[in-house]
Amino acid sequence: MATSTTRRGKRGHDPESVLAIAVDVFNERGYDGTSMEDLARALGVTKSAIYYHVPGKEQLLARALDRALGGLFAMIADERATSGPAIARLEWVVRQSVHILVDRLPYVTLLLRVRGNSATEQAALERRREIDRFVSHLVKEAAAEGGIRPDVDPSLVTRLLFGTVNSITEWYRPPRGGSADDLADALLKMTFDGLRV
Amino acid sequence: MATSTTRRGKRGHDPESVLAIAVDVFNERGYDGTSMEDLARALGVTKSAIYYHVPGKEQLLARALDRALGGLFAMIADERATSGPAIARLEWVVRQSVHILVDRLPYVTLLLRVRGNSATEQAALERRREIDRFVSHLVKEAAAEGGIRPDVDPSLVTRLLFGTVNSITEWYRPPRGGSADDLADALLKMTFDGLRV
Repeated sequence: MATSTTRRGKRGHDPESVLAIAVDVFNERGYDGTSMEDLARALGVTKSAIYYHVPGKEQLLARALDRALGGLFAMIADERATSGPAIARLEWVVRQSVHILVDRLPYVTLLLRVRGNSATEQAALERRREIDRFVSHLVKEAAAEGGIRPDVDPSLVTRLLFGTVNSITEWYRPPRGGSADDLADALLKMTFDGLRV
Repeated sequence: MATSTTRRGKRGHDPESVLAIAVDVFNERGYDGTSMEDLARALGVTKSAIYYHVPGKEQLLARALDRALGGLFAMIADERATSGPAIARLEWVVRQSVHILVDRLPYVTLLLRVRGNSATEQAALERRREIDRFVSHLVKEAAAEGGIRPDVDPSLVTRLLFGTVNSITEWYRPPRGGSADDLADALLKMTFDGLRV
């Protein structure tokens, strides 16, 4: 048994690999469309054995969403997001968001698809709105400090800028697509400095 | 009967309103997750009467996807997309993409979610790839002509630029969110000229 559950070998059934497999199934079939039977099949265990590994679907969802939200909350508490000129903080937050997205791709993908059909999803949406309020405020500060162009509405900038970041989940599949740093560099060049020569 | 099927009154069952209602259901439940019974319920008709209105789900999907793809194909055939400096053509294509997205929001939303589980979806994905090849080529031309900055990979620019456009479907709900022109202006200012002062 030990050899089949090593981190680098065939994925075993330690809590971490159960979570990773479940998140892949959620992203493929949708959380609402995933049954405990689907999870059992993906894990290669019987329908009754699945309850040995997980108490339920919603608990897995909560852990998966925590994985994405934990990274984002650590970001907005970081000194680089909270002190200094707003434009520099915004630049760091965008770069860090790209890193979190790349490092935790399936978890962030799941978070972005949450629609709020359960208490766990509602709680995740509320925490996501907290992140949204933080970045929205940051864009407004950058505008007020004269760091970003005055002829675009800051709310629209927030939507478009983080829409660009989030759209990466639609096509980015490591290792193709480049490193998180290359991706963040290109995104910041386009949105902060502009494509036009 | 006539009064209940007028365009501005309660939505009746002319082909146009059947299509509009079906697309809303597809976007809400997912195409695969929508049954003919779901469509009948949304239309307020019995399960057997639905076949009087539509031969089947896939035919509705095909018409809906044509609505989005038709706009995009007209765009890439337009003179403004095919002659003149590449940077100006690219700018027009981005602006026009925003207009198509806003004007045909539910249809473009559906197109962006197509995963290819049927012949109709496969055909739509192939046509979508044709649009992708056109814009990807246009970005490369703009780079080759020196119209866009040389220090970002054109393929990555294509992904990020049209990722920004497509992300509008995630939050834009008319009439809130502004006009298509305001939206396109803000998007072009951010991506072509940059946010930084």
